[in-house]
Amino acid sequence: MTVLAGTIARIGPLDEAAMIAAREREATLTKPPGSLGRLEDLAVQLAGITGCARPTVARKAIVVMAGDHGVTAEGVSAYPAAVTPQMVANFLAGGAAINALARTAGARVTVADLGVAAELPPHAGLLALKVAPGTANAAHGPAMSRAQALQAIEAGIAVAEREVAAGLDLVGAGEMGIGNTTAASAIVAAITGEHPAVVTGRGTGVDGLALRRKVGVVRQMLAINQPDPADALDVLAKVGGFEIGGLAGLILGAAAARVPVVLDGFITAAAALIAVGLCPAVQPYLIAAHRSTEPGHMVALTRLGLEPLLDLHLRLGEGSGAALALALVDAAARHLAEMATFAEAGVANVE
Amino acid sequence: MTVLAGTIARIGPLDEAAMIAAREREATLTKPPGSLGRLEDLAVQLAGITGCARPTVARKAIVVMAGDHGVTAEGVSAYPAAVTPQMVANFLAGGAAINALARTAGARVTVADLGVAAELPPHAGLLALKVAPGTANAAHGPAMSRAQALQAIEAGIAVAEREVAAGLDLVGAGEMGIGNTTAASAIVAAITGEHPAVVTGRGTGVDGLALRRKVGVVRQMLAINQPDPADALDVLAKVGGFEIGGLAGLILGAAAARVPVVLDGFITAAAALIAVGLCPAVQPYLIAAHRSTEPGHMVALTRLGLEPLLDLHLRLGEGSGAALALALVDAAARHLAEMATFAEAGVANVE
Repeated sequence: MTVLAGTIARIGPLDEAAMIAAREREATLTKPPGSLGRLEDLAVQLAGITGCARPTVARKAIVVMAGDHGVTAEGVSAYPAAVTPQMVANFLAGGAAINALARTAGARVTVADLGVAAELPPHAGLLALKVAPGTANAAHGPAMSRAQALQAIEAGIAVAEREVAAGLDLVGAGEMGIGNTTAASAIVAAITGEHPAVVTGRGTGVDGLALRRKVGVVRQMLAINQPDPADALDVLAKVGGFEIGGLAGLILGAAAARVPVVLDGFITAAAALIAVGLCPAVQPYLIAAHRSTEPGHMVALTRLGLEPLLDLHLRLGEGSGAALALALVDAAARHLAEMATFAEAGVANVE
Repeated sequence: MTVLAGTIARIGPLDEAAMIAAREREATLTKPPGSLGRLEDLAVQLAGITGCARPTVARKAIVVMAGDHGVTAEGVSAYPAAVTPQMVANFLAGGAAINALARTAGARVTVADLGVAAELPPHAGLLALKVAPGTANAAHGPAMSRAQALQAIEAGIAVAEREVAAGLDLVGAGEMGIGNTTAASAIVAAITGEHPAVVTGRGTGVDGLALRRKVGVVRQMLAINQPDPADALDVLAKVGGFEIGGLAGLILGAAAARVPVVLDGFITAAAALIAVGLCPAVQPYLIAAHRSTEPGHMVALTRLGLEPLLDLHLRLGEGSGAALALALVDAAARHLAEMATFAEAGVANVE
């Protein structure tokens, strides 16, 4: 059995008994029933994922997976591909947005090179898991081989297992890769059947003619490669990216360890579509952090059956939205675990 | 000059130079311009409020003001008025939702009795500022005298000054008072001119006939008292509450000390309408934490010109939504203060 098959086999349904116990406790806490809105549903979901009626999410990590995209040769991004390794160095130095936001959330940041198109100097904080130095240009053929797609996913599973071994209650998924909104658009179009023009957006900043060209490139990626929407590994190989495969593996590996996964934006939603395609049982382990400004993001979240927690007009990636949502997930867990009951506090309940 | 007039006189416009410096720094940080969406605008607002181009909001407090309402005699709430002092005890013991959420946010909780209809035992964590043991029944006459309204506001200003002296970079406004959604509905209807049926909601849980009765009570409060929408002190005195007056004072006192104020839900928005009525210059010091399920809340926020940060279907009060938003405000400040610039990180900017 492959590592992937073994991981999928370990992903079971949520723990119904823990969810019932959480709901029962929720009803006894000193507040009007339902008055904490989505935090209450989130707390019950956390109970089901962790198998614990009073879950804690104290140990948090944001995992940022990086990779480059051959399709940048088509002029789909406002930034040069050289920015990917530069931003990896920025993550490792602690100077990027995700570092500031993860510090705010009390989360560690783990950076993994799944396929950056540059030789990155060794660094204690960098997981060197490069499948290849960037994907092939998916506008002219498959982005990677099926074997490479599997390798990227299994590398992501290994990252999840390493993080779990280090102590992990909650993980946020993030990414860096110039050109990866183009790959994500192609994945979302392939899996949902939506037209490329509907799921392709500005990314880090293209507009006008450049945006129209980007839509054309996504259409070409699909026309040339004909990815099979029923075969998530085929979609990943033909139009995906190494970091997107790594994120799909991270999602599966975390769920197999009963760790809730907070998705960031558009790219991680595309990775989640791959993960759910490989293992539908992973869906209830997912939490959508926010609604990004990328038009394909809501298409992906709707297919995933997820409602985002935040809507702050973010379009950065890196796991920035996931980092912001960690505090909400923490609050959901802590109100359930820490609040007094009506009986404990001597407060009168509804008449 | 009264304390109120002196406080209002100290509330000036936001610091334009600090805002310009913050915007200039924002443009140099290692991310696509605008990609952190509303966090970027929030960071600039914080700079303008604090007068600091790289503001910090490390020292946070949630102030919970409590008071009772004579109008509960009309059967407008799902809970008995005895719950107000019981919940104050719960706040002081650390068992309420606001305690768990404030701990998550790294904020202290300060509780003030502005008008609870019970004698509360002295407690080191309780500020005893009772104007009277509950308002009069505003369905039959003014809730309080004009002198009492001024006393409540000035007590709130004193709380703000005390918190500032203890060290305060960011304050969240919260409240407890059985019946206070009825008072808030009357305030919002009086000031905005909206019909009571539009701005009156379920509160902690009334519906059906009880909700129709609540709308009728709000209509009666306005008909009997005829509050003058151009005179915020008159509106507060005739249909408001002691804790609502205290919150209006807290808002003014914080702004006078250049401390940003995070509003919680419907009650604090009504208090903000009173504060803005007294001093329009206080508006830019306000941050709306969330959109509650109370229909009058968005009416109030629209009048205040504020867009809420969160929409999690909360309807608890206590400052719970404000506590959740503190982490977002912190993230806004920290990304601006802590991120590396393109030059510092050696990252290529837009081509």
